Amino acid sequence: MNSIKVAVIGTGYIGVVHLEMLRRIPDVEITAVADTNETLARKAAEKLKIPRVFPTVDKLLADGDVDVVHNCAPNNVHFDINVAAIQAGKEVLSEKPLSLNSEESSRLLALAAKHGTLTGIDFCYRYFPVVQEAAARVRRGDLGEVRAFAGHFLQDWLFFDTDYSWRLDPAVAGAANVVADLGSHWCDLVQFITGRKIVEVMAELHTCIPRRRRPLGGSLSFASGKAASSEEVEVKLDDYASLFLRLDNGARGNFTTCQVAAGRKVDIELQVFGSKESYAWSHVSPNALWVGHREKANEVFYESPALQTEGTRKYAALPTGHPMGYHDAMYNLFRDYYEALGAKRAGRPYETTFPDFRTGHEMMCVIDAAVASHQSRTWTKVGPS
Amino acid sequence: MNSIKVAVIGTGYIGVVHLEMLRRIPDVEITAVADTNETLARKAAEKLKIPRVFPTVDKLLADGDVDVVHNCAPNNVHFDINVAAIQAGKEVLSEKPLSLNSEESSRLLALAAKHGTLTGIDFCYRYFPVVQEAAARVRRGDLGEVRAFAGHFLQDWLFFDTDYSWRLDPAVAGAANVVADLGSHWCDLVQFITGRKIVEVMAELHTCIPRRRRPLGGSLSFASGKAASSEEVEVKLDDYASLFLRLDNGARGNFTTCQVAAGRKVDIELQVFGSKESYAWSHVSPNALWVGHREKANEVFYESPALQTEGTRKYAALPTGHPMGYHDAMYNLFRDYYEALGAKRAGRPYETTFPDFRTGHEMMCVIDAAVASHQSRTWTKVGPS
Amino acid sequence: MNSIKVAVIGTGYIGVVHLEMLRRIPDVEITAVADTNETLARKAAEKLKIPRVFPTVDKLLADGDVDVVHNCAPNNVHFDINVAAIQAGKEVLSEKPLSLNSEESSRLLALAAKHGTLTGIDFCYRYFPVVQEAAARVRRGDLGEVRAFAGHFLQDWLFFDTDYSWRLDPAVAGAANVVADLGSHWCDLVQFITGRKIVEVMAELHTCIPRRRRPLGGSLSFASGKAASSEEVEVKLDDYASLFLRLDNGARGNFTTCQVAAGRKVDIELQVFGSKESYAWSHVSPNALWVGHREKANEVFYESPALQTEGTRKYAALPTGHPMGYHDAMYNLFRDYYEALGAKRAGRPYETTFPDFRTGHEMMCVIDAAVASHQSRTWTKVGPS
Amino acid sequence: MNSIKVAVIGTGYIGVVHLEMLRRIPDVEITAVADTNETLARKAAEKLKIPRVFPTVDKLLADGDVDVVHNCAPNNVHFDINVAAIQAGKEVLSEKPLSLNSEESSRLLALAAKHGTLTGIDFCYRYFPVVQEAAARVRRGDLGEVRAFAGHFLQDWLFFDTDYSWRLDPAVAGAANVVADLGSHWCDLVQFITGRKIVEVMAELHTCIPRRRRPLGGSLSFASGKAASSEEVEVKLDDYASLFLRLDNGARGNFTTCQVAAGRKVDIELQVFGSKESYAWSHVSPNALWVGHREKANEVFYESPALQTEGTRKYAALPTGHPMGYHDAMYNLFRDYYEALGAKRAGRPYETTFPDFRTGHEMMCVIDAAVASHQSRTWTKVGPS
Repeated sequence: MNSIKVAVIGTGYIGVVHLEMLRRIPDVEITAVADTNETLARKAAEKLKIPRVFPTVDKLLADGDVDVVHNCAPNNVHFDINVAAIQAGKEVLSEKPLSLNSEESSRLLALAAKHGTLTGIDFCYRYFPVVQEAAARVRRGDLGEVRAFAGHFLQDWLFFDTDYSWRLDPAVAGAANVVADLGSHWCDLVQFITGRKIVEVMAELHTCIPRRRRPLGGSLSFASGKAASSEEVEVKLDDYASLFLRLDNGARGNFTTCQVAAGRKVDIELQVFGSKESYAWSHVSPNALWVGHREKANEVFYESPALQTEGTRKYAALPTGHPMGYHDAMYNLFRDYYEALGAKRAGRPYETTFPDFRTGHEMMCVIDAAVASHQSRTWTKVGPS
Repeated sequence: MNSIKVAVIGTGYIGVVHLEMLRRIPDVEITAVADTNETLARKAAEKLKIPRVFPTVDKLLADGDVDVVHNCAPNNVHFDINVAAIQAGKEVLSEKPLSLNSEESSRLLALAAKHGTLTGIDFCYRYFPVVQEAAARVRRGDLGEVRAFAGHFLQDWLFFDTDYSWRLDPAVAGAANVVADLGSHWCDLVQFITGRKIVEVMAELHTCIPRRRRPLGGSLSFASGKAASSEEVEVKLDDYASLFLRLDNGARGNFTTCQVAAGRKVDIELQVFGSKESYAWSHVSPNALWVGHREKANEVFYESPALQTEGTRKYAALPTGHPMGYHDAMYNLFRDYYEALGAKRAGRPYETTFPDFRTGHEMMCVIDAAVASHQSRTWTKVGPS
Repeated sequence: MNSIKVAVIGTGYIGVVHLEMLRRIPDVEITAVADTNETLARKAAEKLKIPRVFPTVDKLLADGDVDVVHNCAPNNVHFDINVAAIQAGKEVLSEKPLSLNSEESSRLLALAAKHGTLTGIDFCYRYFPVVQEAAARVRRGDLGEVRAFAGHFLQDWLFFDTDYSWRLDPAVAGAANVVADLGSHWCDLVQFITGRKIVEVMAELHTCIPRRRRPLGGSLSFASGKAASSEEVEVKLDDYASLFLRLDNGARGNFTTCQVAAGRKVDIELQVFGSKESYAWSHVSPNALWVGHREKANEVFYESPALQTEGTRKYAALPTGHPMGYHDAMYNLFRDYYEALGAKRAGRPYETTFPDFRTGHEMMCVIDAAVASHQSRTWTKVGPS
Repeated sequence: MNSIKVAVIGTGYIGVVHLEMLRRIPDVEITAVADTNETLARKAAEKLKIPRVFPTVDKLLADGDVDVVHNCAPNNVHFDINVAAIQAGKEVLSEKPLSLNSEESSRLLALAAKHGTLTGIDFCYRYFPVVQEAAARVRRGDLGEVRAFAGHFLQDWLFFDTDYSWRLDPAVAGAANVVADLGSHWCDLVQFITGRKIVEVMAELHTCIPRRRRPLGGSLSFASGKAASSEEVEVKLDDYASLFLRLDNGARGNFTTCQVAAGRKVDIELQVFGSKESYAWSHVSPNALWVGHREKANEVFYESPALQTEGTRKYAALPTGHPMGYHDAMYNLFRDYYEALGAKRAGRPYETTFPDFRTGHEMMCVIDAAVASHQSRTWTKVGPS
């Protein structure tokens, strides 16, 4: 079969991770990149020997050789690029969020359905092997009924008032910062592991650092306002959020996220309490799943191609004891996506086991409900997805 | 000086721990016990060579030789015994909660003030050496301003529907179960470490197991309805609760507690995020304090008579590396209480560094606000303390 | 029954721990203390309300009211005091080591047998509840045959060349320092858990810091030569040691101990690998036993009066999840000793489940073999015990 | 510049990992594979779109387009292939061990020097970012003088007597099994981190399971004798080994390795104790370096492109908190190798910071000394390297 030809839009940090992991996927050929910062794009292209560099998204989408687009541009243009890529007949794997609100993501869903697009979205944390294992065990009934869940997603990259990011600017980031950025990852983990939908939310958003120094002349993902050329700005978006959550079976959950938690880097923790046992997973020690019991010793299950549930072994590719990392999680997601795409192109049936635009839209609905809840200070139902 | 003469009311599990740890306190003589279950009381007295056993609280309080009363009776009689003990001129160290609501605890405060009673309450978790260390560092300014905090208190002793306790019965336990029982400990830790007061609450209470088997003929603290002689009952009190919390400086916090979390035993975790650094403490590994930093490696501080802040070294009595346990935490609390009492009796000035009836009342106010918030589904201010 | 009357010889650090934990033992009355530093003895006696203070060991042993002697004096007088106490008709619980070599400990064994003395020795680490659990499981056959074991005992209290102790002086400490002091604890754990005897040793002893500053005028257990009044001395005893060990079933083991390991406090770790499963225990997290499996998830067993093997539940006295500490381990040892003593005095049969002078002698034989092995640089058999 | 053309010999487990990680290296083109099992080779070639498949090593080496050979064949042919590849003018990156003994590895060193070959060997564990960090800090002087070190490398893949591997067969594996296979990795970590050479060894090798079931008809790396078609064989090589080690500055170390340790997968631990601080690293939690101190809290340093020592930041490619894994370690090694190769081809100066044939030879010398020590039961000097 011919290689699948892939283009990546956006060659900042996450775009480069996409490029590197795409290189591990058999049957994939990276043919083009685009970035509004053309120098950045050229550098990536040269280093990774990518033949074509486009100065604009439009020109890239006009390239008939491109089969799949990875949308790694900034959040505020995710929607426009996703729309254009679908309309150009490309398959689309987008960075999260799909758009700035659920009304837009709803339109994307419809558009993709109309065009028969194979969509994907980068909720990569579910692709650590033991997260897959937890989900598989829930589906097999090991956990029993989900009763409650709890956890957090903590970071410290906005700890100082001299830290700044476009994520704090409503014009670029939309109505929320941390609850959208980190909260959506965590809520996806909840839905993925439990197999249930979040239906109601009570939220509190808070800005721990209400005034920051913004560097003059550009706001990258990770920037510092320590430079002399900065100005003090009022920050309106959240750097802390808490959510009470309710699942469609009535299970209750609680979540905290914060970007000013000194010493916490990508500290994701999720505990799920069922009627038969409990699971806990932490991204700080991502290779192990804790399994809790009332009447016998608790277990620590390590990712393993030998011991995992049948269907999840492929995600634990290395002999037991060799740790997988973040790169491998993203690779696992890509592999699932491209296996489905290979099947689609070959006319074979396939499953979309990976997160797709529906997933992305569901998360937009949860975040929209959280923002509305915060504003009204009341419990808010998650809109129809 | 003469020994201080102490009596313990209630000789169930926690009463026996009191008795054992009292035996480690110099200058204290245990002279009497009382329990409505006189057999239990006699057994404890015989084993520990306690001279007097009283069949009723009244008779014990009438004993002029008793200087101090430890109130280890069930929750629903805490208030009455505390009142009677104060009125009988005894000093009182009570198990938590002081009473079943904040109106009662408010009266207790007034009564104790009137009688000049030296009061104490058993919020023992703050007496792990590194919890004291965290509090001392906050007061010294190391943490900076508290911005946010989060954590949980999880257990599994009500995991099965055949588990039952009087704590689930509103007639005995009052308006709440887990949020009061475990939540008060956690909120005390928050106030103690941060040095700030909780002023507003948003709560969700939930009953994960709405129908349980209650054993016929008595409901002890830890009972099982597995016996044939049990009946199904509807459970109205919470076995799960979540709280959004606000401190008097505007800091936000989030807390989850649950008693049906399989595999979690006494799993208390508290993280505090300040403007200079972060602290985290877990009762599962209670001898270490995690100190988080943005720009250098995080630290793990182990309890130590050599390295702790001056005033807290006495709580880490053993050479560094020899772990203190739960017993030692309670002993530390007792020691502080009895040092103050010794000073009081000698007419020397003293500090009440330990939790007292004011602390107990503040916690009742937080719990009352949580229950009210749950019922109204709105943010609720913590009543005047 | 009348109380058992106990005297403690030596009121330094470990003597005070003995005194405090003795206060928790029912049926025990502390009647006397002695210390060559009479001021120290008086202080302890006053604080803990002990009626008699003796200026010499002889006078204490002449006190007919004393039933049991706890020998907490420095190592170099352990032997003499043990001999004298037995000859005075006392029961004896001695700090380790029993003597400075195995020839002496052998004589002690014979003497105690002749007098029918109930002897005990303070190998307290085996009294953490899950260490007892491991031993019970081995005896039940869970582990299968022991194949191999490994671990370490690391400290840092001799890290600086200004740290000094009488333990480094052969005149007081005998032929070895760390291999005797820490090594004997670890080897006792091995024998206790596996139920097997160490029969052959290959050892390397080493002095990482060959020159130290010794404070002039006295060498306490924990001293510093930072003071101006110190002199440089050559250190001849080991502050590092490694042992290859062989058990009587042919199982192989390996052990490292070191007192100059910065950051390690009382870091004991022991792993035992059997033909059916593995166990690991660490004093840094002493409440949990790791249980390793090849074909299923590993387990973490937490001390528990509910889940432990029947005979070991009494050592886990608190409800599951409340951590026991070092004090509790020593208390557990004392309780076993005094239960046996109560039975002996009542003419009832009893088991000596606790470590006794035989245990102490066996450890002296292992240490003697280690020193001999180091000197000859060859494998050395452990002498007859 | 033209791509570097790479061929991989051996397409079993480790060969496929090489292939996958090579795909992440810019400027590298995988042009050929070879395997005596041609079906295996074809499968890998097809999946990864590798143009040429050779049935023999000779034919592959005769391909003038091949610049570099990755030697991933079984141990017993490592030497022959390495010799042939060097003689064919290829650059060589070999799996460990280089050969079956140090005499052979010595000849390889000479041969590579004569041909100017750029050699590499896959000691990949040193390429976890914080292992690099530890080494960099030692070189900067942070650790002070190395005084002692200790650790282990434990596995359980030979736990059952029905487990079998060619590694247990002296005809294929040489004079040692686990001490060579795992011991060489650990000893390389010691030399790499400390910057010192191992000069003397005392070893004990042991066969915990002396009789195993060998499957009839082939012995792969990971095989099971559970099948009916197996025969009982006597095992002569070690599945357990312990080593006392001495460095060229006199520092002492101790090491245990075992392949029958149920529950331990790739459990590598190394602690290094210096005169200023200590380091500990565990492959079970490979992203963190423990830094131990005597007079302040210990630290846990997490891999970070922001906080690592300048020269090691490139190994921590992801934003702090995103864990690297085993794949990334191997990728880091390849990247260093190919950067040097790029420089060599361009005539630019370069450093060989990666492990090369000299490293491999040094490890062969240590293992040879260990085997000799075991046989003579005496301390043995490591031969000239």
